[in-house]
Amino acid sequence: MGSVIASDPRELLDQARAGARAALARLITYVEGSGVNHLDTAALVYAQSAPYVVGLTGAPGSGKSTLTDQLITTALAEGSFGGENPFGRVGVLCVDPTSPFSGGALLGDRYRMQGHATDERVYIRSMATRGHLGGLSLAVPDAVRVLGAVGFELVIVETVGVGQMEVDVASTADTTVVVLTPGWGDAVQAEKAGILEVADVFDINKSDRAGTPATRRDLERMMDMGPTIPWRPPIVETVASDGRGVADLWAALVGHRRFLEGGERDERQRRRVSHELDRVLSALLSERVRTGDVAHRYEEQLDALLAGTTDPYRAARALLFEE
Amino acid sequence: MGSVIASDPRELLDQARAGARAALARLITYVEGSGVNHLDTAALVYAQSAPYVVGLTGAPGSGKSTLTDQLITTALAEGSFGGENPFGRVGVLCVDPTSPFSGGALLGDRYRMQGHATDERVYIRSMATRGHLGGLSLAVPDAVRVLGAVGFELVIVETVGVGQMEVDVASTADTTVVVLTPGWGDAVQAEKAGILEVADVFDINKSDRAGTPATRRDLERMMDMGPTIPWRPPIVETVASDGRGVADLWAALVGHRRFLEGGERDERQRRRVSHELDRVLSALLSERVRTGDVAHRYEEQLDALLAGTTDPYRAARALLFEE
Repeated sequence: MGSVIASDPRELLDQARAGARAALARLITYVEGSGVNHLDTAALVYAQSAPYVVGLTGAPGSGKSTLTDQLITTALAEGSFGGENPFGRVGVLCVDPTSPFSGGALLGDRYRMQGHATDERVYIRSMATRGHLGGLSLAVPDAVRVLGAVGFELVIVETVGVGQMEVDVASTADTTVVVLTPGWGDAVQAEKAGILEVADVFDINKSDRAGTPATRRDLERMMDMGPTIPWRPPIVETVASDGRGVADLWAALVGHRRFLEGGERDERQRRRVSHELDRVLSALLSERVRTGDVAHRYEEQLDALLAGTTDPYRAARALLFEE
Repeated sequence: MGSVIASDPRELLDQARAGARAALARLITYVEGSGVNHLDTAALVYAQSAPYVVGLTGAPGSGKSTLTDQLITTALAEGSFGGENPFGRVGVLCVDPTSPFSGGALLGDRYRMQGHATDERVYIRSMATRGHLGGLSLAVPDAVRVLGAVGFELVIVETVGVGQMEVDVASTADTTVVVLTPGWGDAVQAEKAGILEVADVFDINKSDRAGTPATRRDLERMMDMGPTIPWRPPIVETVASDGRGVADLWAALVGHRRFLEGGERDERQRRRVSHELDRVLSALLSERVRTGDVAHRYEEQLDALLAGTTDPYRAARALLFEE
């Protein structure tokens, strides 16, 4: 654009809304790096309605990025999601919780999505920051809100693997897709149980390979054994590399959205917001005990812990309640 | 034993020290289920010196459990670790952070370690609880301390995968072993970067399979590219199923312990204790805002968040500082 990028959050937001991608990038960098200290931006972006968030999680090599690429195409082509809100702009956050120095690690994924790299309607961003307390678990919902405030109605959040971070991301998403590949049935029980907890939709990608029916049977049996829940995750088969089944995946997303709008979404929103608030509370507390006049009391408690004259539970109470 | 198991923590501890495994089991169940509310036990167990903790982390199928089995045998046979402290008793915690309902999921692992199941000197326990706030990130260090107080000098903590939980476990361990298998070199960069952060020792297990030299080269190159650190993790090759290389792994553990005793351990201890204190602080805070007279203020803030009239940062400040 060539125009000057502002430094004031409100101006940045206006510029980003007008289409300045550098302003959008700077806004996200700002919330990423600010930890609990961006009341200015927070007030601006949380006042806007949140975008619809689709979480995509799966093991490395399951083809998540190619699938995301296909979903972007579908979202822009269909122009709507359940027949109501047009998706004029789609945001993608590629989240890598595993490392502080993998800023460049996801370049491969970005590359795969390059069909959309020059599309004005698409914004793709890797997030791997861990520079501040609370890290990604604060930065991801904040970045989602920034995208929402700028006018992105759909945000796809892509994460690697199934672990605490994925559970966190799932709590940020309206609809979570767990991406598997055929043969996954050989994985240990522990991993299987974990994905049941977060999945709204199962996608068996690379389903042209052997083992797809077995994987489907495995998932069905797993769900049969689990608790009865109001929404039983559908199982979709895709071959993301050539687009097969992507329409089915899209239909499953639309179906889940309709289900949520039948009343479930409010309850989910409350759980999500409560989850967000808890994480901010923790981060704020961690910051507070390390700064100002509480800092020396924190150090005293650490010394006592190392000397074995207290335990973490007593120390925490002393710090929080000055008991 | 046939003797009556106590319910008072101090009595339980005495019984567990005398060898009553049911008392030990009950103590761990107690700290697992108590969240931030076990000041009685905490005072008892944190006053004792902590055991030496070896963390073992790796993907499902990497052979961690078989390796743990071998390490137990070596620890008991060698009877010492670095030539100083005899390991008369070895504890193993198998941690599954992925699910709340996988209490039985790790039975397979237990089964593999059954060679030691009837050995009085060995205690093996699966931990998968998520029943309370803070969950495993509180329960694991607490269980480690219980084992230490009962007289276990070595505790092996086994976890699945590389994610936030593994980073947490690594912060609990004195020495963390990352278990890989040949062919791992094909994994995405993101995963690679994550393990560098937690590894003190790399173990290429199933090293009789093709691809071991490539995996070793890959690890070396990765470390060459990373920051220079005082301890460069050695790479060990094992075939846990027949015991090959286990002596090398043991030697690497002894080497790392010696390195820590050269001064690094104090710094690590401080980081670890600080990490523990932060987690207890968070959990205590989360509990506090949901109970007593703060609870209605928490609900008010949730309502305001859902209505879009505040943001999580402002809400957290209001709750913490009554601003």
